[in-house]
Order: sequence, then C-alpha cells, then structure tokens
Amino acid sequence: MKKRIAILGASGYTGAELIRLLLLHPEIEIKALTADSQAGKKMREVYPHLDFAGLPDLIPLSAVDYSLIDIVFCCLPHGTTQEVIAALPKHVKIIDLSADFRLANVDTYAKWYGHEHLAKDLQKEAVYGLTELHREAIKKARLVANPGCYPTSAQLPLMPLLKDKLIESDNIIIDAKSGVTGAGRAAKQAMLHTEVNEGVGAYGIGAHRHAPEIEQGLSEAAGKNITVNFTPHLMPMNRGILSTIYVKLTKGKTVDDLKNSLNKAYAKEYFVKIAAQGITPTTHMVRGTNFCLLGVFADRLEGRAIIVSVIDNLVKGASGQAIQNMNIMCGFAENTALTQTAIFP
Amino acid sequence: MKKRIAILGASGYTGAELIRLLLLHPEIEIKALTADSQAGKKMREVYPHLDFAGLPDLIPLSAVDYSLIDIVFCCLPHGTTQEVIAALPKHVKIIDLSADFRLANVDTYAKWYGHEHLAKDLQKEAVYGLTELHREAIKKARLVANPGCYPTSAQLPLMPLLKDKLIESDNIIIDAKSGVTGAGRAAKQAMLHTEVNEGVGAYGIGAHRHAPEIEQGLSEAAGKNITVNFTPHLMPMNRGILSTIYVKLTKGKTVDDLKNSLNKAYAKEYFVKIAAQGITPTTHMVRGTNFCLLGVFADRLEGRAIIVSVIDNLVKGASGQAIQNMNIMCGFAENTALTQTAIFP
Amino acid sequence: MKKRIAILGASGYTGAELIRLLLLHPEIEIKALTADSQAGKKMREVYPHLDFAGLPDLIPLSAVDYSLIDIVFCCLPHGTTQEVIAALPKHVKIIDLSADFRLANVDTYAKWYGHEHLAKDLQKEAVYGLTELHREAIKKARLVANPGCYPTSAQLPLMPLLKDKLIESDNIIIDAKSGVTGAGRAAKQAMLHTEVNEGVGAYGIGAHRHAPEIEQGLSEAAGKNITVNFTPHLMPMNRGILSTIYVKLTKGKTVDDLKNSLNKAYAKEYFVKIAAQGITPTTHMVRGTNFCLLGVFADRLEGRAIIVSVIDNLVKGASGQAIQNMNIMCGFAENTALTQTAIFP
Amino acid sequence: MKKRIAILGASGYTGAELIRLLLLHPEIEIKALTADSQAGKKMREVYPHLDFAGLPDLIPLSAVDYSLIDIVFCCLPHGTTQEVIAALPKHVKIIDLSADFRLANVDTYAKWYGHEHLAKDLQKEAVYGLTELHREAIKKARLVANPGCYPTSAQLPLMPLLKDKLIESDNIIIDAKSGVTGAGRAAKQAMLHTEVNEGVGAYGIGAHRHAPEIEQGLSEAAGKNITVNFTPHLMPMNRGILSTIYVKLTKGKTVDDLKNSLNKAYAKEYFVKIAAQGITPTTHMVRGTNFCLLGVFADRLEGRAIIVSVIDNLVKGASGQAIQNMNIMCGFAENTALTQTAIFP
Repeated sequence: MKKRIAILGASGYTGAELIRLLLLHPEIEIKALTADSQAGKKMREVYPHLDFAGLPDLIPLSAVDYSLIDIVFCCLPHGTTQEVIAALPKHVKIIDLSADFRLANVDTYAKWYGHEHLAKDLQKEAVYGLTELHREAIKKARLVANPGCYPTSAQLPLMPLLKDKLIESDNIIIDAKSGVTGAGRAAKQAMLHTEVNEGVGAYGIGAHRHAPEIEQGLSEAAGKNITVNFTPHLMPMNRGILSTIYVKLTKGKTVDDLKNSLNKAYAKEYFVKIAAQGITPTTHMVRGTNFCLLGVFADRLEGRAIIVSVIDNLVKGASGQAIQNMNIMCGFAENTALTQTAIFP
Repeated sequence: MKKRIAILGASGYTGAELIRLLLLHPEIEIKALTADSQAGKKMREVYPHLDFAGLPDLIPLSAVDYSLIDIVFCCLPHGTTQEVIAALPKHVKIIDLSADFRLANVDTYAKWYGHEHLAKDLQKEAVYGLTELHREAIKKARLVANPGCYPTSAQLPLMPLLKDKLIESDNIIIDAKSGVTGAGRAAKQAMLHTEVNEGVGAYGIGAHRHAPEIEQGLSEAAGKNITVNFTPHLMPMNRGILSTIYVKLTKGKTVDDLKNSLNKAYAKEYFVKIAAQGITPTTHMVRGTNFCLLGVFADRLEGRAIIVSVIDNLVKGASGQAIQNMNIMCGFAENTALTQTAIFP
Repeated sequence: MKKRIAILGASGYTGAELIRLLLLHPEIEIKALTADSQAGKKMREVYPHLDFAGLPDLIPLSAVDYSLIDIVFCCLPHGTTQEVIAALPKHVKIIDLSADFRLANVDTYAKWYGHEHLAKDLQKEAVYGLTELHREAIKKARLVANPGCYPTSAQLPLMPLLKDKLIESDNIIIDAKSGVTGAGRAAKQAMLHTEVNEGVGAYGIGAHRHAPEIEQGLSEAAGKNITVNFTPHLMPMNRGILSTIYVKLTKGKTVDDLKNSLNKAYAKEYFVKIAAQGITPTTHMVRGTNFCLLGVFADRLEGRAIIVSVIDNLVKGASGQAIQNMNIMCGFAENTALTQTAIFP
Repeated sequence: MKKRIAILGASGYTGAELIRLLLLHPEIEIKALTADSQAGKKMREVYPHLDFAGLPDLIPLSAVDYSLIDIVFCCLPHGTTQEVIAALPKHVKIIDLSADFRLANVDTYAKWYGHEHLAKDLQKEAVYGLTELHREAIKKARLVANPGCYPTSAQLPLMPLLKDKLIESDNIIIDAKSGVTGAGRAAKQAMLHTEVNEGVGAYGIGAHRHAPEIEQGLSEAAGKNITVNFTPHLMPMNRGILSTIYVKLTKGKTVDDLKNSLNKAYAKEYFVKIAAQGITPTTHMVRGTNFCLLGVFADRLEGRAIIVSVIDNLVKGASGQAIQNMNIMCGFAENTALTQTAIFP
C-alpha cells in the first residue's frame, strides 16, 4: 500500500518542489495539502503549473485527518512549527523543513531565533537530516529536522575533512552565493525582479541564522566547538547555492589529501560527487537535482585550499533531501523520485 | 529487450535534452552518441552536468555500428541531415529533429533553405511528427520529421480551429516569443549573455523558415493554401515559447466556439491542455515539460479573438516531442519519460 | 535663477528616475522630495544608490512649502492625484506622471478607473504630454498629463500614419512587451524575481487601462473613433518596451509610404528616430535613454505591414518625457539632461 | 580647442563604453575609431545604439592620422598592444586599457602572459592608473596603464589598510564576483546567454592574471611582497564586480580602525565612498557609474573583518577610470563626463 502524504504549508516554494518531485514517486500518494491563507483554493489558483496533476485542494491546517496520513512534510514558517509538530499523532513520521528542530541545543535556538524553544522534549528526539552523515539515525527516526540549504552545501565537504583532521578548525571562511528562491514566496520589495536583477550583494554579514547550524555539524565532526565565517550573497538567479570555502590545511597535509578524504567519504554515495579533474562545479550542473557536486583546488597561498560546493537549494537544500530522508525512513530505495539529471540549459 | 538508441549530434542542446529525458525512460538504453567535432571526448567534457550518468563517450558519426541500434535520433544541422539519413540501414527507426524532412513539398524546401532537397524519395516517406495531429501515421512511420518549435506552438491551437472553420484563414497573425536555446549552442556574438540580457527584439521579420512549416500544417487543416504573419522575437530567457495569435472569427462564431473546439480536439490528450478560466498561460507553467498549454481570449476588436499558446521549445518543441513520437513508434505508453510537471520557480 | 523642483512621490521608480536625470540638469535644483510612507528618512534609506547626491530628506506631502517651488513632478498613485493637484497653488507648473489627467473624457476615465473624476475642471486645462505631437500646447501649459509608457510607444508611430491615412483604422493590433519596472516598486508576489525570471506571459488581455489612452490619441489623429487590440506582455527584464504593431495598409499604399510618412513626421526630432535599413530596433538600443526608435517592415500577408517601436519605459515612457516636457514649459533646450546614449551592454 | 580623441579597438565593450561616456564630455571630440576586423563599417553596424551620435566610421588601425589626434585610448587585446603603442608619435597621450603595461616587472609579465614584454623601455615610463592612489604621477604621464577591473575593486580598499598596517599581509582572501561584460564581446560558447544564465561558478582558481596585478599594488602599499588568494566568479548579469575580502586584523586593531583608515584615505575623493552605517554595498548601487563603494564589517571570527567593494567593471573598472585619468592628464575637472548616478533599477 502506498504511503499517504500530507504537506503542511504547501503554497510556498518548498511545498511546490516537494510536489514536483513526489509526483514522480511510485510508492506514495499525496492526500492532503494545507495552506491556511489559501485554504479552499484549488492548487492551480496558487500554482497554475500544477493544474492537471490531480492534486487535492488546499485545506486549513486544522482540517487534516491524520488517521489517513502516514507521513507529514512540514513546510511552515520558523517559529510556528514546534507546536504544530508537537501536536501530531505519534503514528505519523515527520520531515520538518523549517529550522525549528535543527539546533540540538535549545539555548542556541533561543539566542538566534529570539524566543524560547516550544517543544524541548521533542527536540531531543529529532534527528538532523543531513542524509549522508546521519543515515543510520534517520532510518529509525520519527522526526527528522531537514537541514538548511547553506548548511547542506557547507557541511557536506567540511565534515569529512574535519573528521580526518585535514584542515584547521579556526580558519574556515564560507563565501556562499544563493539564488532567490531561498527567500521564499512572500512578497518583499527587496526580492522584486527589479531589485534583484542585474546585480549582486552580500547580506546578513556575521548574523545569518544558518551559521550556528553549520557550526553544529562542524563541531560534531571536529569533536570541539568551531566558529566559522559564513557570508551569504544573493544572486540574480532562481535556484542554486555555490559555497566557495577557504580553508587552511593542517600542517603537512595537501590538497590531494583533501580530495582523497572526500572521495573516500562519498565513494558509495549516489548524490554527493567529486568533480572530475578539469571541471569546476557550477550551480548549472545540479539545477533541479538532488546532487551535491564538490571540487577541491590548491590556493596560491601556501598551505591553504579552496573548496567549491554546489547544490540546488530547493532540492538537496530542501525538498529533495526531505524526500531522500523519507525514502530512508520508509525503506524505499534512497534515490526514488530523485534520479533526474540537471535541467540544462 | 530494451530499445537501443543512437543520438547523432549529441553535443547540441536538443541532444542534451534528449539525454536528460531518455535517462528516465525504462524501456531504452543509450548506446551511441556522436559529435564529429567533439569525437573522442567523454560526455562530461561537453556537458559536465551529464557526468555520473553512465553515458558512452562521443564518437564520430562514421563510427556508429547500426547493427546494435534500433532507433536513431538525428540532431544534425539543417542541410547535412538528408544524406546522413538516406544512408541509414532500413531496420532503424528515425526521428529527425532537423528541418530537413519537415516540408512535404521539396520545391518549398529548396526555396526556403537555398538548395535542392537531397533525398526526395525519402521525403515522400517521412511523416510530420506533430504527434497529436498525426498519431496514426506516426505509429507506422520509419522516418518521422520532428516539428519545429514555433510550428508546434502555432499549429496545435490553429489546426483544430481551421478544421472546424471557426476562424478566417487569411488573417492570422502569430507574434511569437522564444527563449535563447532555440538558437543552439554555437558561439555567436548575438547570443552572448551581454547582448541578449535585459532586452527584447524581433528578428527574421517576414523571413523565418518556420513560416512555411506553419503554413503547411494550417493549409492541410483548412483544405486550402494559407499564408500567415509569423513574427518571432528573442527573449532574455533560456527556455520557452509563447505564441500570441490574433485571429478573426468566422462570421457568427464566438470565442466560446473556439474554446469548445479546442476542448473537444484535445479532450483525451495528455500533453495539450486548455487553461482553466482565469489562468493566462505563461511559459513558466510548462518549463521543462512536454506540455502545450492553450488559452483563448476575447479581443476588444469585435469579431476577433486572441489565442495564447505556450510550450518549452526544447521539450514539446524538440526533444520531448521526439520521445513522444518514439514512444508511439515503439508501442510504449505515449507519456513514458515525459510525465514531469514544470520546474517552477 | 534655477528652477526649484518638488517631486511628490519620490520613493517609487519614476521618482528615482526623475532624480537620476535631473541631477544632470544645469538649470534646476531639487528642493523637496515627498513620500508619505517613508517621510523622515534620508534618501539613502530608500535608494542607497542616491546617497552622496546631496538630496533633501523625504518629507510628507503636507510639508511641502510651495512658495519655494516652481515645478512639481507628481508621481503619486492613480486616483489620489486629482485632489492633490487641484489643491496646488497656481504659480507652480505641474507634470503629472499618473494616469489621472490623461483621458480628456471624464466618462471614459470613470469607466476604466472605476470612480468619478475628482477634478473635472482641471481636466479641461490639462495638456496631454506626448511631446512630439503636442509641443505647442505644452509650451503654454500649466498642467501636463505625462503619457503612459505603452501609449507613448504606440502613438508615436501610429499617429502620423493615421493622419496621413496610410493605414486602416479598424485593424490595428499592438502586441506590446514590457520590462518589470512598469509594475512599480510595491511588493507583489507576481513581480518577485522568482516568479518573473525565465519566462514570459501576457496579462490584462483586452482589459488594460492604457488601451483607452492609446485610442484617444489615435482617434484624434484619424479624426474618428478608433478601437485597437492592445495586448501587453511581461518580460524578464527591468527596462524597456517593445511594441510590435500589425497594421493593414490603406488600399494602394506601400511600406515605403509608411517609412516616408514617419521620416517626414520626425525629421527634425531629436528623440524619435527611424532605424536605418538593416536594423531591427530592440529595447537594448534605447535602454536608459529618452529615445524612441521605430522600424517599418513588410508583412508576408499582402497589403499589411509590421511596425516595431522601442522605448525605455522609465525614460521616454515616464520620467524622461516628463523632463522633456518641463524643458519645453520652462523654455530650456528640449534635450537638456536627456542626451545620453543607451547604456549597452 | 577641444582635445581630439582616437579610440583604437572601438568595437569591443570598453570601446563602446568610452564612447558612451565621452559623448557627454564638453572638452573633447572623437576623431577616429579603429577596428581592423570591422573597418569600413559605420558604427551603427557594430553598435546600433550608437547610431545618431554623429560618430566617424570605423577605420583600420593603420589609417589613423595621428597629426590630428591628441589623446589615444587603446582598447586592443592583450599582447598586441605593446608594439602598437611603442610606434605612436610622442605628442599623443595614451591611456591603455589592456594589461600590457600594468605590471612594472617585465619578468612577472612574461610569466603570466606567456611571452616576453615587447616594449620594455616604454614599460619604465608607464604609470599605473589607479587614479586615487597615483594621481600625481598620472598628471605628468604620457602613458597610463589603466588598471584591471578586479584589481581596481581590490586595491582601493586594501592599499590604505596595508599602508596603515591595520591588516595582516599574509592572510588576504579576495572572493570576487563579476558580470559577464568582463569577458568581452568575442563569441565564446561559455559566454552564451544559455550557458551563463541562471547559475554561478568560479573560474581561473589560483590562476587568474589579475592576481599579480593586485599583488603589485598591495606589495607597494605594504612595503613588502604580498601573495593573495584571489578567486573570481562569473555572475549571470552584465555589469558589476563585487569583491568580498576577508582579512585578519593586525593585533590590537579593530573594525573601526579600518573604517577610519578608509574614511581618511578617501575623505576628499569624489568617486570612492564608504557606505553609511546600515548599508551593505551591492553592485546595483554603482551600475553605470565611476564610483567605488566600500563597506567594512566585523567577522564572527575574532580578530577578522570583511570588506565589501563594488564597482561597475566597465566604468571604474575600465572606461570610466580611463576618462578620469584623461581628465587629470589634460587638466580637466576630474569628474567631467562621470557625474551620473547609478541607473537603477
């Protein structure tokens, strides 16, 4: 019997992306789509491109009958999610795409998100869903906190290198470039085409909420507390994150050591790939896909290296990884519905 | 046993798009990829995003062993295709994505393409592959001439209306807007990002080679020779064609008659859809898909109507329709490998 | 003594564009900038690129001391403008960039804008500011209704042709393509980069408020009431309007007659130009400028022609033409502050 | 009497940008435009947007009569320029926009450009034209080597900080993001709209020729040899460079020390500005202008800071700075023809 899916908050971009991918999944059926502000509408009124897909109409969050649901994808805004998830019946498995359960330390959460964590017990149960690094825990999880887009792009290359003690932990600079979908679908002046197009800029310098999430993973890998420089930039494009990461090699280590470490760490992975010699990863190469493509390059500064990591922020950085996690939680082949190559050009 | 595919001219955009879609097809395997100028290279050297897909290396056209091939997709430039296809062994089925076999009248071909047709006998055998209009002939075809992108977007709405005698045949104006992929991958100054971005323009006014192709289909539908206005425009985007078509209603006919005609013509079709009331089709709604979405609107000029038709020029306008045709020629479900919804945003 | 300028509604795009151009004007000084919702802010808080330009802070509309002002540019939203302008003291000259005084017939205004005209007497005094066609009246005007962007692009080529009786008046089809700045700076979901980018669509089919404005000018030129097809489309670019206009020639007239008519009409004009043989106007060619570039082309449909008209919607379609009108009203050289060539690429 | 200008290599983007700006300059006239491959053409055949500007036709390099020329802007490709300039008569002043005279050390030139310097004596005479840092030498120069775009964006913030010994010299990381115009107008597949649009990537990692140029300036400022990390990225936009620069503070120094240093260094400058508190510079803010806008931000990594520097690569990064240098060489007001604010949106 197919798994029955509910998507809470289906009118945002991560909701739409979940639908795009889940429609290719042979083992599930989409049973409920909620969107409080749009409740009562047909999906085509919110996303005309999803007309003809046979989707249920949008309903209020309160109208979901969970007795008919096996799996919940939660795409609600940060802050509102904790209480919603705490109230879900125990038989449903949950993949939460918000930030609400990503930080294991509830004090860190309170500091960065400006309010007390509202489901502290549940936080202890939550598994951080960076699939390739936490696959075993995800298999057994009831609640997976799906990683943020920037943290996915940064942790995948850096965690193995820190585990293998190949790079210094106090000198990590992550210059990240993201497409605009990361800002969501809410109408904001700063995200108008007129304001974004034909220019680039940094934002949230020293203050982006994905910094503590990145540091949590890196600290876990290094076995000690790590602080990083994380500087996000907004690009005039819809999809994609490129993180250019500047690292200092541990004394005596080489760029080849880094490549070998990543090759070993991801040798058996379907979605994380090391670029072949001569190829510099660009976001075009992963657009629309669940892949993370990594490249390692020598720096002209002696004893340093540069790592390039690209993902599609809506797929591996959100909805694709969420489905990858669902596949693991349900015992499906991990790449089910996620095998497309990039849409290029 | 899976059908074995060769793609001749695999280094262009239609070749890459065929590969993107065929990789999702359970009934085929890609056995040969040719690209004379790139022969000997791995696919990743031409299209890095196709690394890890398990594709064969690029070989010269002359190196294909057709005894191991069941189906050929031909993505070679206009003019070189006729002789290549004429030389293929008879057991292979061919879908030709060039313009070389689209015009049934070889004199019209000679006039618009500037040289004699080089395979006149084969031309008689070729079936024009506008799938929804010629499905029965395609089933039995050995050689399908896959339609051009603009002609697909224009003929799908206009042919039923002309068949049903709902619009005047001497007053059809097709204002078409296309993304840049239609110009192919050859390096041309006019197609540089710097030249295309942040502006729009018309081109080929009164002289585009897709005009006679459009007129061929419309004349067939109307039962008499038709000349149309066809004015293409280049848009600063990669994919998509929107044709805004201005028509004069036959005396006594209404916009509702047009809608009914299209609804009836395409009621059972998977890929051609009539937009719901309140939705104006945009190319975003079909990006990456094999769908054609149509809308019909009243004009303020009495007795006239406006039709909007959108496709992805690389999919329904090229590689997607080619696979749709292959599916029919091979007896597969017509939408195999083509069921994705649009990638939006 | 320099003319002292106030810009009412300076926080929108037409306000910012007025400032960009007026900063190059040697005969004026900007004395007051209003923006009720942003009152009290420095201009850099609203438009960081205007920091360092020595501009006054934003003030409420009610705080303007008109005894220190000679000229008012009014960039307020449609509907609120009539009463504001009616209350201005008589010594100020006014260029209104809204639609509030463009339609001479107040009943037409009421029909298309959904409410009674609120300053009917003032409407009689207002001069429609399509500079090249109404220069003499503008010289003497106190209140100029600055034309809409689409109407400017359509009326400039069509009015001379209708005056010269070269085209049929009942068969004019205007397929217009506009950049996103035309939608203004208000935060709207449909204008997000994510929604606009990489696609095109028509909107307001048969219902756009610029249709009656176009028809007003064309009717004046033709000496009889004219209805046109006007179909606007949104392009993934910031600036520019391209109108592709399909016309039927009056019996016996030729494409050359059209070219001659336009060449004659605009022979002495600085800003309206006919493209040289071999050049098809694109919006790139006028980006950032006050120019209108026209091209005339033969249609393959006998007895028909195609006209291409391009402007920058924010300049000749709004703020540039407003300054051109001010220059005339004040006796300055008409092209003062407006002589830049296009910014390309 | 006006200065008479020749532009050698006028058909590229820097040539076109020189023309755009020089047309606003009251003290010069453009007398000769060369473009060997386009010789004999009217400028409108190469750049339609420059029709109507009254420019001379394009001629071969060999056809310039230098007895009628006072100033030469040289926009020829790297490598061909040295011999051309060496052959110019001594009365002309030269601003060279190529890289051929930027590196004072001819061995460094030979290493990075792959061939011997062909005008070593002339190299000794050339003045590096980073205006704000070398104004006095430029006043007296006959030959100015106009800086590269990336080096301009990086040296302007870093040189004062190094002079003031506020940052460590062995730990400078420059992550630069550039628009596509930097790649020039030659037709290259990698620069097609289809390849660039909707994605970002790094290129030339550890191997870009602007690295030694940056290091030359920084070494001069620091009084010792400096090596930097310089990693350029290509953005899907036409104009603009944003350099995000990661630096380590000298022991005991603070972010405020950096701000003070830059404020002091550029207090009297017209074109280099420090962003006000609360504003993060983006390339939109300088598009089309000769400004460089700088911001300094605290890093979360203790003892480190982040500098953001934005310019328009075609203006301050090329043609604008060239005119700024010409103004100084000729005794004109330094900002003549360069006072426009940014074109936004």
